[in-house]
Amino acid sequence: MKVLLVYAHPEPASFNGAMKDQIIQTLTRTGHEVTLSDLYAMNWQAAAGPDDFTFRANREVLRLQTEQAHAWRTRTFAPDLAQEVDRLDAADLVIFQFPLWWWSIPAILKGYIDRVFAYGFAYGQGASLSGKKALCCLTTGGPASSFESDTRGTVLHMLRPVHAGVFDFCKMDVLPPFVAYGAARLDDTERKEVLIRMDQYLSQIADTPSLKFD
Amino acid sequence: MKVLLVYAHPEPASFNGAMKDQIIQTLTRTGHEVTLSDLYAMNWQAAAGPDDFTFRANREVLRLQTEQAHAWRTRTFAPDLAQEVDRLDAADLVIFQFPLWWWSIPAILKGYIDRVFAYGFAYGQGASLSGKKALCCLTTGGPASSFESDTRGTVLHMLRPVHAGVFDFCKMDVLPPFVAYGAARLDDTERKEVLIRMDQYLSQIADTPSLKFD
Repeated sequence: MKVLLVYAHPEPASFNGAMKDQIIQTLTRTGHEVTLSDLYAMNWQAAAGPDDFTFRANREVLRLQTEQAHAWRTRTFAPDLAQEVDRLDAADLVIFQFPLWWWSIPAILKGYIDRVFAYGFAYGQGASLSGKKALCCLTTGGPASSFESDTRGTVLHMLRPVHAGVFDFCKMDVLPPFVAYGAARLDDTERKEVLIRMDQYLSQIADTPSLKFD
Repeated sequence: MKVLLVYAHPEPASFNGAMKDQIIQTLTRTGHEVTLSDLYAMNWQAAAGPDDFTFRANREVLRLQTEQAHAWRTRTFAPDLAQEVDRLDAADLVIFQFPLWWWSIPAILKGYIDRVFAYGFAYGQGASLSGKKALCCLTTGGPASSFESDTRGTVLHMLRPVHAGVFDFCKMDVLPPFVAYGAARLDDTERKEVLIRMDQYLSQIADTPSLKFD
């Protein structure tokens, strides 16, 4: 498969960085082709806005959906955005690697969704993402026990806006997330165990059944 | 009350812009003092990272929570961030005005949470937000009927990461959100009606009971 790995962590020496490296290693070894979008290294612009477009349908008032559909149709996204639209368009599998911050994805990754999952390209009539696979790989600050309660929320609850609201809405196949709980408190041995578990999970990723959403 | 209005929309002529103006007008008229943080106008940096700190506890490896607590203790946040920390610290009520994008807040506003709701200041031992009020005012693209189903999700479900995961976690009092459904499709008369309803809601905001979270 062609894999687009979207990585969102500011510190290369973090455990998220190690997971990103593991993804590239495992998927390359098992015959896939990985493209990395390292959002912090790219200094990715998070805020969707007028600079996303080089040729506006309406220069007076900015309506994002209108401009996104127009830019996709006329291929006039700004260069940074056009590159990512092309990468997502070419991918069979997109992986988000990130730390869970505030029950959600980091702002820089939310900005990837806001800008790249553009109306006309990612959803709406003639959209392009149907049948692509999508996978979240993440770390949490708290241990697994702090995510067991439905009242505070499990990781699946917290990922629902991304899984159901973005991926499933765009008719993508959502794979079960890979979660490294309590990453900041893992010692070296535990970190190696997580990476081994990740390697095993990813080496079978082409055959992993997807989640279902109502 | 001292009110901090955090506004996140790229188009001043949008209905979000009209709601922002209404908030300022109503709250000023009813005796409150409003400070506006217009994130797009400020060109707010959304991505939490090394530039948030002018004096690092650890210059080798970036651990955000460690650096946030250190920056709060030593008052060494970067100037753009220090200004917002001070504004939030001074506020009795914080209002987020935004469009719901992808079942969630816009990236630029997520970046406000990631950076300003810093460890040590917003949560953790000795944190400062307890008892402050918090309110989300938002527009949706879809009509109210598209948010009635619990399977796809109500607005309260979609705001849960912000309400429970951020505000309640920081011991703030969460006020019921003000929602303008299907904003893009409202005609002028309907928009005026929404703003009148908003004016009525906000004019009693000091006495509005807060939501409870388990």
